Amino acid sequence: MLMKTSTQSLTEQLSGRFAQRIRDRLLAPGARLPSVRECARQHGVSPSTVVAAYDQLLAQGLVEARKNRGFFVREPSPEPESVRADAPAGDRPVSPWGTATGWITARHVAPTQATALIRGMFHKVSGRPQPGMGAFPPEWLESTFMPAAVRKVTGTKVLQDFSLQYGEPMGDSNLRRVLAQKLARLNVPATPENIITSVGATHALDIVSRTLLRPGDPVMVEEPGWAVEFARLTALGMRLLPVPRRADGPDLEVMAKYCEAHKPKLYVSVSVLHNPTGYSLLPGSAHRILQLANQHDFHIVEDDTYSHIAPEHATRLCALDGLQRTIHVSGFAKILAPNWRVGFLAAPPALVERLLDTKLLATLTTPALLERALSLCIEQGQLRRHSERIRARLDQARSRSVKLALNAGCRFESEPAGLFGWVDTGVDTDVLAQRMLDEGYLLAPGALFHAERKPSTLMRINFATTQDAAFWKKYSELVRRM
Amino acid sequence: MLMKTSTQSLTEQLSGRFAQRIRDRLLAPGARLPSVRECARQHGVSPSTVVAAYDQLLAQGLVEARKNRGFFVREPSPEPESVRADAPAGDRPVSPWGTATGWITARHVAPTQATALIRGMFHKVSGRPQPGMGAFPPEWLESTFMPAAVRKVTGTKVLQDFSLQYGEPMGDSNLRRVLAQKLARLNVPATPENIITSVGATHALDIVSRTLLRPGDPVMVEEPGWAVEFARLTALGMRLLPVPRRADGPDLEVMAKYCEAHKPKLYVSVSVLHNPTGYSLLPGSAHRILQLANQHDFHIVEDDTYSHIAPEHATRLCALDGLQRTIHVSGFAKILAPNWRVGFLAAPPALVERLLDTKLLATLTTPALLERALSLCIEQGQLRRHSERIRARLDQARSRSVKLALNAGCRFESEPAGLFGWVDTGVDTDVLAQRMLDEGYLLAPGALFHAERKPSTLMRINFATTQDAAFWKKYSELVRRM
Repeated sequence: MLMKTSTQSLTEQLSGRFAQRIRDRLLAPGARLPSVRECARQHGVSPSTVVAAYDQLLAQGLVEARKNRGFFVREPSPEPESVRADAPAGDRPVSPWGTATGWITARHVAPTQATALIRGMFHKVSGRPQPGMGAFPPEWLESTFMPAAVRKVTGTKVLQDFSLQYGEPMGDSNLRRVLAQKLARLNVPATPENIITSVGATHALDIVSRTLLRPGDPVMVEEPGWAVEFARLTALGMRLLPVPRRADGPDLEVMAKYCEAHKPKLYVSVSVLHNPTGYSLLPGSAHRILQLANQHDFHIVEDDTYSHIAPEHATRLCALDGLQRTIHVSGFAKILAPNWRVGFLAAPPALVERLLDTKLLATLTTPALLERALSLCIEQGQLRRHSERIRARLDQARSRSVKLALNAGCRFESEPAGLFGWVDTGVDTDVLAQRMLDEGYLLAPGALFHAERKPSTLMRINFATTQDAAFWKKYSELVRRM
Repeated sequence: MLMKTSTQSLTEQLSGRFAQRIRDRLLAPGARLPSVRECARQHGVSPSTVVAAYDQLLAQGLVEARKNRGFFVREPSPEPESVRADAPAGDRPVSPWGTATGWITARHVAPTQATALIRGMFHKVSGRPQPGMGAFPPEWLESTFMPAAVRKVTGTKVLQDFSLQYGEPMGDSNLRRVLAQKLARLNVPATPENIITSVGATHALDIVSRTLLRPGDPVMVEEPGWAVEFARLTALGMRLLPVPRRADGPDLEVMAKYCEAHKPKLYVSVSVLHNPTGYSLLPGSAHRILQLANQHDFHIVEDDTYSHIAPEHATRLCALDGLQRTIHVSGFAKILAPNWRVGFLAAPPALVERLLDTKLLATLTTPALLERALSLCIEQGQLRRHSERIRARLDQARSRSVKLALNAGCRFESEPAGLFGWVDTGVDTDVLAQRMLDEGYLLAPGALFHAERKPSTLMRINFATTQDAAFWKKYSELVRRM
């Protein structure tokens, strides 16, 4: 409910709220604004106030009116118009993905969707726990060993050693050594010489795709899946081949068909505690995926971001394959220090040099200070014990959240596991997300996890932030009204 | 001179030395090994030892023999052959740069050249000062304020604030605020809202090119120029249009012709203390470049990496243009802490959102801990005073180095300024670089600064590391023998 203040009229408040949301990508380009009547009811204002607010948004170029259909958030032009204006269309190079059919063709749709989700991750919607977040709440990650490790690397002499030169191209040698040991426990046979550090797992995935793929190359991704990966590949000009992700792994029939028809070069997979479903790959599927990879000659990048909260014995393609045609990617944002941006990849020896070239061309080296501090936390077993504590806490949070979600009428699409629940709400979660935002809650609607935006009744919930009965009460209230 | 040891034969030592150099890219793919006779003389061994060593390299697949021409370092295959073997050539998408003529077409040549230089930058050749280095020696960068600034951000509470959440997508707000003030002194009108931080200046350039260009797009670069930029653009599939760089700026006639013929989208420029020539842009050229940009509708990214050792009043395109179609890029690797990898860009408001999307897709956020520490160093004027000290020290080093270089028979291609000298040696600097490497000195031969590798008698010297008479003595000795 909006309240008139001395400095801002209701119209200004309402248009300001929509404008902010559009700028933050919480209202995605192409999204329809609520009807005038609905909006008036929702915010407790008169229809004429809504009309005036929408007119302001129109004047600011943030929305467009479509005849008899209402107001829609404007699609951003892919380039500033001034720069493109006099370049005739026929003169532009034909983009390899421009004429493709059956693939994801719209270049800027996916990045926009994904950045909506990313920006949501960083945007403080309110002081409340955020069900749409992709990470643990900061208070869960607190530890005493992290500040202690940082103190060890920030004494004047050590600090200078870690600051005044570019550092090792592959990354801090100590970190690579302890990572090799850590991977050995997952049965992934890596040595420090085939590990390369990166600015978080996202950067490692970026390095892999820039090295193995050329623009226009087809690449298999899991659907539903992590929107940032779809967006990044799309922005690099790759063609996405979405493979449905099932409880036991990817749909192998679809994969086999893609292999025959498109000869994909790469398959991007989250085998363990898949985001958003929580599924983990079964051994039989893993074996068959590797058979397909051998037969059709593609690489696999296995994103093991959630390994810290997964059992060591979980099935991993990299372990079965022994890093022959698989590349392992992971990071520490989900367990220790999201802002340190420390990630890494472990690759077959034959690919290491090329991957390192890509890293050097993109960022030169990475900050070794933080890499070394992290290696100390791993080396002394502190990270392992910290992960165990968080796992135990998450187990409790998950059972509470599941109960509350079921009571609120949600249906779980997949067996609850790991950090995320993938639930069916029965209503359009894009619309629901907008309404919950008005109440100070950020949701992750299902549409964000698909390569092409389409309405969905699913949403991803974070078990660490949905133990709160107040959220579910508000949720039920709004769902009932839809 | 090689010496027989109890553990390694002379043949093993010699082949091992070449193998290491090939792996480190200090001997680039396509480079010719010395003739058997020459190599025998150089290393004081018998020709049969050289033949045996070359045979070992051949067996290891590191070199290839070309009939009547000698031994050459093997070009790496662009992809592992196993993966490409059964993909028929006709089935591959036609790459837009594959059929172009008059442009740089060889995709992997430039990256290899560049990574040779980069790896040289990181590779400890010996304990001696390295004339080919691209940075100040670490002891020049030492300060007491940097450790003090780090202590301020590593107290437990502050550290947790800077670690346990992803942080601000645009980068640390304090750093962006002081950078805006710093840019104002250069007459570049930026606010914290159009500044985005990055993992070093290289990453900022990467973000700009990924945002503004699509694979196949033509982009103007300066030649000679920074090899990493050529390599990065080439690896992203862009077409390089090399513009000769003159004392007053780029060759405007060549630029105008490129604009007519190829409609480039971007011009990448180092206006101030250009690497490797040390040239700085004159106001008249700057004005005409901006006129061309307006007329032919291209963007300019101005890499101001050397601004810390340049006068504030130097001519900058971003200042003249007021960030209309120019993007400012800089970093702190050359003045404070190379391994912290803190860089940034300042962009026209209309581009900021798109650039931010690219940053998020590539690395999500960047480490704010180091950004905040750096902002404290700037805010308190310490970085400015430190820069002044380094500038004074560099001035002295430069005058000493210039004298030594002239005495050694070098001719300066351009007026000595900044960190680098661009000198003509009169001999093939690729060959010279190999010989100097045997003596423990890394050189930066001229070929590395060209978009296409060709023999050059030029080399780049680092004034901070060429004040050493011992280096010039060895240099003169070897040049005389060539």
